[in-house]
Amino acid sequence: MIRYDDDSLALHTDLYEINMAYTYWKKGNADKKAVFEVYYRENPFGMGYTIFAGLERIVDYINNLTFTDSDLEYLKNEIGFEEEFLEYLRHWKFRGTIRSMHEGEIAFAEEPLMQVEGPILDCQIIETALLNVINYQTLIATKASKVKTAAEGDTVMEFGARRAQEMDASLWGARAAYIGGVESTSNTRASKVFGIPASGTHAHSLVQAYRDEYKAFKAYGETHKDCVFLVDTYDSINSGVPNAIRVANELGDKINFVGVRLDSGDLSYQSKRVREQLDEAGYPEAKIFASNDLDATTIQSLKMQGAKIDVWGVGTKLITAYDQPALGAVYKIVSVEGNDEEMYPTLKLTANLSKISTPGKKQIWRIRSNNDTKPEGDLVTLEHERPDLEDELFMFHPQYTYINKTVTDFIARPLLKEVFVDGKQVLDLPSLEEIKQYTKERLSEQYEEHRRILNPEQYPVDLSKELYDIKVDTINYYREKPIDAGMNEG
Amino acid sequence: MIRYDDDSLALHTDLYEINMAYTYWKKGNADKKAVFEVYYRENPFGMGYTIFAGLERIVDYINNLTFTDSDLEYLKNEIGFEEEFLEYLRHWKFRGTIRSMHEGEIAFAEEPLMQVEGPILDCQIIETALLNVINYQTLIATKASKVKTAAEGDTVMEFGARRAQEMDASLWGARAAYIGGVESTSNTRASKVFGIPASGTHAHSLVQAYRDEYKAFKAYGETHKDCVFLVDTYDSINSGVPNAIRVANELGDKINFVGVRLDSGDLSYQSKRVREQLDEAGYPEAKIFASNDLDATTIQSLKMQGAKIDVWGVGTKLITAYDQPALGAVYKIVSVEGNDEEMYPTLKLTANLSKISTPGKKQIWRIRSNNDTKPEGDLVTLEHERPDLEDELFMFHPQYTYINKTVTDFIARPLLKEVFVDGKQVLDLPSLEEIKQYTKERLSEQYEEHRRILNPEQYPVDLSKELYDIKVDTINYYREKPIDAGMNEG
Repeated sequence: MIRYDDDSLALHTDLYEINMAYTYWKKGNADKKAVFEVYYRENPFGMGYTIFAGLERIVDYINNLTFTDSDLEYLKNEIGFEEEFLEYLRHWKFRGTIRSMHEGEIAFAEEPLMQVEGPILDCQIIETALLNVINYQTLIATKASKVKTAAEGDTVMEFGARRAQEMDASLWGARAAYIGGVESTSNTRASKVFGIPASGTHAHSLVQAYRDEYKAFKAYGETHKDCVFLVDTYDSINSGVPNAIRVANELGDKINFVGVRLDSGDLSYQSKRVREQLDEAGYPEAKIFASNDLDATTIQSLKMQGAKIDVWGVGTKLITAYDQPALGAVYKIVSVEGNDEEMYPTLKLTANLSKISTPGKKQIWRIRSNNDTKPEGDLVTLEHERPDLEDELFMFHPQYTYINKTVTDFIARPLLKEVFVDGKQVLDLPSLEEIKQYTKERLSEQYEEHRRILNPEQYPVDLSKELYDIKVDTINYYREKPIDAGMNEG
Repeated sequence: MIRYDDDSLALHTDLYEINMAYTYWKKGNADKKAVFEVYYRENPFGMGYTIFAGLERIVDYINNLTFTDSDLEYLKNEIGFEEEFLEYLRHWKFRGTIRSMHEGEIAFAEEPLMQVEGPILDCQIIETALLNVINYQTLIATKASKVKTAAEGDTVMEFGARRAQEMDASLWGARAAYIGGVESTSNTRASKVFGIPASGTHAHSLVQAYRDEYKAFKAYGETHKDCVFLVDTYDSINSGVPNAIRVANELGDKINFVGVRLDSGDLSYQSKRVREQLDEAGYPEAKIFASNDLDATTIQSLKMQGAKIDVWGVGTKLITAYDQPALGAVYKIVSVEGNDEEMYPTLKLTANLSKISTPGKKQIWRIRSNNDTKPEGDLVTLEHERPDLEDELFMFHPQYTYINKTVTDFIARPLLKEVFVDGKQVLDLPSLEEIKQYTKERLSEQYEEHRRILNPEQYPVDLSKELYDIKVDTINYYREKPIDAGMNEG
């Protein structure tokens, strides 16, 4: 590994983005306007929604995006680009406009989470990093929401650092999980950098190091005010809990006996026995923490069994989104400037009909009745459309168009807001606490049927008539024969 | 997010590590010697081995490990540690000894990949980061080996950057995948930093931007020497390949027509048709690249169908280790200094018998016959044992002890080598190319039966008699009653 003093994220991109950038530049097309949109095709984990996350990281990336000397050296020596192009990149800064959902927004399949408009070269260079960040952070925020829903509002602690897919995943995953609903992280760097509450007490190794559970608990209690004793190093019920109670009795007010943690064995049975032990010993307030490869399904099952668990520690299954470790969001060009300087809708045809993208620069409107806070569905329109000024909306399913309804007396809230305009940040980002609160409020407004984690009812994401017509027209256009309306041939 | 000029990885750890460090320090036990070992319990993906990776990252982490001002501020203000402890941490540097397998070594379940010996405080602080790095990088190197095995030696390109779990996963995952057997990465930063060959040509967006496939290919060909045309934007067989051939014909020697890439649809059928198209057009050397959510199983299936694919692009399924996104390696204390300054073996008991750890400071020996390069199995011994000086070895299964054999005329190669001694790096790390070559050679020495990716024969990892006896004794010791042989009660 070579360590560069001027390492940057400009090269955190796929080679093909730079190859295309070169072709655009060389052919005089670098400044042609294009619009790209980020969206995913299916909600993950069998859920009915996602929680959009990653915006703060992206804003930071865009604001610091420059090709440094070592980046350019690499592109010259290893890839072989010509000097003039490298000089162009040396002075290049992102010049585009980015519209995005609010970080923490409740999002759905087949609607743009983010939209990038600007010189096509600029749009292309940032693709990989945008997807990398949004795919992971949105996935983890959503997974956290699933776990939190399973825990029915109980406190959930994220402690997957050791199983995360490298360091950034632990750091940014902790933040995404916090947005999605967990209360704390074990990762102290994430706690420091983002202000997330840190949690954690001691491991088995403390007990093993003392080679005596009682002495280990005593030493811990004598050096920490808040105590959660990990009781399963030898035998939770016969050794761990009695030793924890003995130390709590001995130290009395000197400690805050928060509770005990179970980390192996039958959590349902043990938690019930341990609850009795703690209650009998006069510690009804002491909480039972549980961990051990927990996931939403195991938490739900333990809940159904009446397990007496108060706080859930979730590691591997949350931080890696174990049951679906990738969201699969894509970044598709939806509109491009022709030689006549008009913008043309564009799409990718594919044999898989449901994967045909929807062309055109869009806005999303969350529609709710004037009499209710609960959204009825999202309407995806072309950018110039203003359903918020209409009295009546005709909404129909984008594939099964005979499923439709007319909505009146409604409020339409646009979801995509400008974050950058012509390369300049125009939006002040909310704090992490505000984002977390925003998610909580938006989620609580959703119908329970859309929120439930098993077989949720599908939330409607409909297309406007105008957008639908453009999609059909564009498909027909490409089905016939692509004609010349595109870029300079140079 | 707060940006710190002095951000460090010292806090990239679980809070409980620092909590325990404080207890050790406060009780006068910080310098007590301990030995921890990293191992995992089961080979991932149904495979018979893993490829150990992550050492270079860990060496870098250890060499740069200091608590900075902002780290200490955080620990003071947010966690509330006392000033004197923070002063101790301010001057703290890692003082331990680390023994590790060679990066790229073929490794197996239930044997130590790495061993950390030193003051218990030091051992504890680095736990989380070590596991975080080893778990991910070993997982991806192993997954890459699986994919490469499925591809039967064909070229495999890693291009999962957009689906990786945040940026570090893309960067270090590219390196791990390269060790495990892939030939290139799409991530130009990984290529720059590690010297991995970069690969990639253009995306669908280039074709969509030109709104004319022929013109897009032409523009690309006029601006790049090596051309792989992505042919499935509209229709691979009827439009994509004919346009690629037309451009190749027109540009002749001006380009190197490397081939075409298929990214959707029936890859088996299409590749056969496209092979005919290319051959008939006089391009028998042009290669067919394929991608589209490929994994080891789909590659194997396509091979069995006789698909005419030469180069495989693998993204999501490789970079996230989709079928098992966490390795689950643990870091267990195996030996600790008592008050009498003797070292005592230690273990964690658990209701799950197969999860009881093996106590004692170990070495691993790879045993092969003098007449053959193929390893017969690994022997895990206590550190002082020297099977390499014996004439005869008695090897037996660690659980099914009646499965055993006596080995003569053998060579025993120790696998754990010192990387740090008392905090100082003593080993020069091999280059990435050397690591990749090392993996390739070691893997080729393994019996095919252990290497195959479906239902491999289990490679023997046996315990020495002395180690087995210590394990049984230690279990009995803790089964009876922990007695005082441990740390200062302070």
